Amino acid sequence: MTTAKDTQRMMHINLFIMGCGHHKAAWRHPNSMVEQLGDIAYYERLAQIAERGKLDAVFFADGASVGNVSDGSPWFMEPLTAIAAMSRATEKIGFISTVSSTFYTPFHAARLVASLDHISKGRIGWNVVTSMFDEEARNHGYQAMPAHSERYRRAEEFVQTVLGLWDSWQDDALEFDRQGHYANPAKVQPINHEGEFFLVDGPLNIPRPVQGHPVLFQAGSSEQGRTLAAKCAEAIYAVAYDLPAAQGYYADIKQRVKTAGRSAPVPIMPGLVTYVAATEEEAQAKQRELDELLPVAASLRQLSVFTEQDCMSWTLDEPVPELPPLAEFKGPQGRYSTILRIIETEQPTVRQLLGRLAAGGGHCTMVGTPEQIADKMENWFRNGGADGFNLMPPSLPYGIEDFVEQVIPELQRRGLFRTEYTGNTLREHLGLARPQHP
Amino acid sequence: MTTAKDTQRMMHINLFIMGCGHHKAAWRHPNSMVEQLGDIAYYERLAQIAERGKLDAVFFADGASVGNVSDGSPWFMEPLTAIAAMSRATEKIGFISTVSSTFYTPFHAARLVASLDHISKGRIGWNVVTSMFDEEARNHGYQAMPAHSERYRRAEEFVQTVLGLWDSWQDDALEFDRQGHYANPAKVQPINHEGEFFLVDGPLNIPRPVQGHPVLFQAGSSEQGRTLAAKCAEAIYAVAYDLPAAQGYYADIKQRVKTAGRSAPVPIMPGLVTYVAATEEEAQAKQRELDELLPVAASLRQLSVFTEQDCMSWTLDEPVPELPPLAEFKGPQGRYSTILRIIETEQPTVRQLLGRLAAGGGHCTMVGTPEQIADKMENWFRNGGADGFNLMPPSLPYGIEDFVEQVIPELQRRGLFRTEYTGNTLREHLGLARPQHP
Ligand SMILES: Cc1cc2nc3c(=O)[nH]c(=O)nc-3n(C[C@H](O)[C@H](O)[C@H](O)COP(=O)(O)O)c2cc1C
Ligand SMILES: Cc1cc2nc3c(=O)[nH]c(=O)nc-3n(C[C@H](O)[C@H](O)[C@H](O)COP(=O)(O)O)c2cc1C
Repeated sequence: MTTAKDTQRMMHINLFIMGCGHHKAAWRHPNSMVEQLGDIAYYERLAQIAERGKLDAVFFADGASVGNVSDGSPWFMEPLTAIAAMSRATEKIGFISTVSSTFYTPFHAARLVASLDHISKGRIGWNVVTSMFDEEARNHGYQAMPAHSERYRRAEEFVQTVLGLWDSWQDDALEFDRQGHYANPAKVQPINHEGEFFLVDGPLNIPRPVQGHPVLFQAGSSEQGRTLAAKCAEAIYAVAYDLPAAQGYYADIKQRVKTAGRSAPVPIMPGLVTYVAATEEEAQAKQRELDELLPVAASLRQLSVFTEQDCMSWTLDEPVPELPPLAEFKGPQGRYSTILRIIETEQPTVRQLLGRLAAGGGHCTMVGTPEQIADKMENWFRNGGADGFNLMPPSLPYGIEDFVEQVIPELQRRGLFRTEYTGNTLREHLGLARPQHP
Repeated sequence: MTTAKDTQRMMHINLFIMGCGHHKAAWRHPNSMVEQLGDIAYYERLAQIAERGKLDAVFFADGASVGNVSDGSPWFMEPLTAIAAMSRATEKIGFISTVSSTFYTPFHAARLVASLDHISKGRIGWNVVTSMFDEEARNHGYQAMPAHSERYRRAEEFVQTVLGLWDSWQDDALEFDRQGHYANPAKVQPINHEGEFFLVDGPLNIPRPVQGHPVLFQAGSSEQGRTLAAKCAEAIYAVAYDLPAAQGYYADIKQRVKTAGRSAPVPIMPGLVTYVAATEEEAQAKQRELDELLPVAASLRQLSVFTEQDCMSWTLDEPVPELPPLAEFKGPQGRYSTILRIIETEQPTVRQLLGRLAAGGGHCTMVGTPEQIADKMENWFRNGGADGFNLMPPSLPYGIEDFVEQVIPELQRRGLFRTEYTGNTLREHLGLARPQHP
């Protein structure tokens, strides 16, 4: 039984766009639309499907290096330009663009994102990232990535500067008085920022965004990442393998936000990979079909690196051999602990392990009927694990079509998800107040 | 009489978009669409009108400071994001975005412009500028604008780096072979650039643009600006007050291009302000109507600064009083010589001088019937003054509607302008070859 209060709290659901899907082998499927990845119409169509499902937003990750082009490079369209087009092919759904605080200047970031907010009439969010790879740094004038702590100090100054620039125009600065002011100069003021990293006089050369501030997203997991999130994130992309992990992260972030003296809801959206079908067997078959497309030798070679074992002789459809405990492992701990976790909880075959790593990795995967998936999502949502989800469909557009056609109606029947947009801006979709001009 | 060869050479015509028009008082007109400047639909409509006229392209200037917000600030939409949307509202017309080599990194510039070229299916050009004002520099970490010569050294390295990044993917790198490569890694190579200003490894994280290279535009007038243009510009925006000035610039640039060993046509397009109507009197009335909207006191105050005279007591509808010769003037020479030139050739009233300075300044202004304007354009075009024009309508959308409805048909009748697009890319419109991969 659901109470009135329960039915008022709704999930926030976001589509995380990624090439032909989040499963690394998705582009290899005979029906993949890989040939369309250079066609903006493909991305517009994904946004339209998500809008049909009344999703809150579409999210574009981004990086500044090319990755492994042989095995399906994720980058093609640049997010800011793609989103400008996609926003014109839709009416209500929001769009979140990743912009790196390590490589952009705050003025360009503020300007580009503000311009998108005007173009989309208030539907833009900004995923603040500090970037990760030396390959990215070496495309932007650095010999290597600046230290993690320096990147986060820069990110904090960057965000404050961007917010200042957005506020450099008061909401009512534009007067369009044909006998007087175009804009009232008293309401357009410099910010005169001079900090550790940036010198920016302002004002910005575009009026205050429709939303006041486009919505700030963040996905940090380190101590510094969480601190930044607590200070300024308005919504969060999380990584949680299972409900206990989600609950731990959720409680921590909500506590930090409170400690920071903020009363904003800060919805937390863990990543979610789903394989949906009318029966559990069909759903599993969908997963198997993608897993079987992985290039075996290359995947085993990569797994050998991840586990520091010789995996080349492992038998694909037999259970994964026993691995040394985390304490004995000398390489990067994060991925190895994910691998141990998958083996422990799912007892996968070697092929299944490769498939899990190839789609979502440390994110949660749910396989089953619409009811089964809705049950699990509801369980996370009602038990302090999530305020919503960042959908990472293993294949696109198929995975998001399945979700929109099968899972969304089930969530709607349960009163867990909107049946119609009630607002026009991303802030309204997310239940976030429009920031007053300071 | 026109020969077969004559009719083959066609003008290139470009619409230079600027707020409510290039006349500073355009936004003050009762029918101005100033309230729509924050609505991307306004810009899409301008592009559609230009496309109806079969124009080569739409051009967006840009700057990184806000200017005088009281008197109608030109900036609102950011060009790259606006063009993404506008390209989706049109099918054939090209779009040129200004991107500053002083404030962007080459990787971002290459990526954003390449992404637009994919989104628009090959309709993008890049106007390379080095920026001008200290106010801009102080929004991007500099205390003041770097010296002119340093800016141009940086611009040259910037352009070479961007071209290298666009070529870091071979045209046939993408294979989409479901059993093999997504892209052939042998055909996606780093550039390992390390110069005076930039360190950029590459490769770019987006495949080679549809046009190979989006078209490089430039508008430099200094010695260094012309040198850069001769080396790498594929089309040029010029400033020419009258035909002799245009011929001088034209001959100089064509000579420099030849000296640089290039055989590309490098079309030169001077700016052109037009007031068109069925009769000469009506056209002059259109000009007068806009000139009369100029705020008198502010304009006279500005003119006092430009001329180092006390202009406040001048009578608006009387001829401009005599001014000291250029040699005796101690302020910025460029604008003062424009003022002397206007007085000498047009014998304007004070109000007319203010109007000429408020629309186009040193650019050419043509006022008259469609036939009269087509005559003058043809004269420039046939006599070594121009390969086409960069239209700077005093008011928008009205000025471009007038031009498209009245002047374009007249140019078409004379065989001077296309009646239908014969290509699909901006390069094809401009008659420029697609650059081979090196
Ligand atoms: C769903 C999700 C999306 C992310 N998208 C990006 C991205 O587009 N670009 C990027 O550089 N980092 C991205 N990240 C990485 C985070 O910004 C962050 O760097 C990472 O979670 C590690 O945390 P830390 O920075 O606190 O060490 C993403 C993380 C998550 C969970
Ligand atoms: C039609 C035209 C458009 C221009 N657009 C821009 C612009 O958008 N942004 C900018 O900073 N400069 C712009 N400029 C200035 C030129 O890039 C150049 O700096 C100027 O002509 C002075 O020449 P110089 O740089 O060789 O000294 C433009 C010039 C012309 C003629």
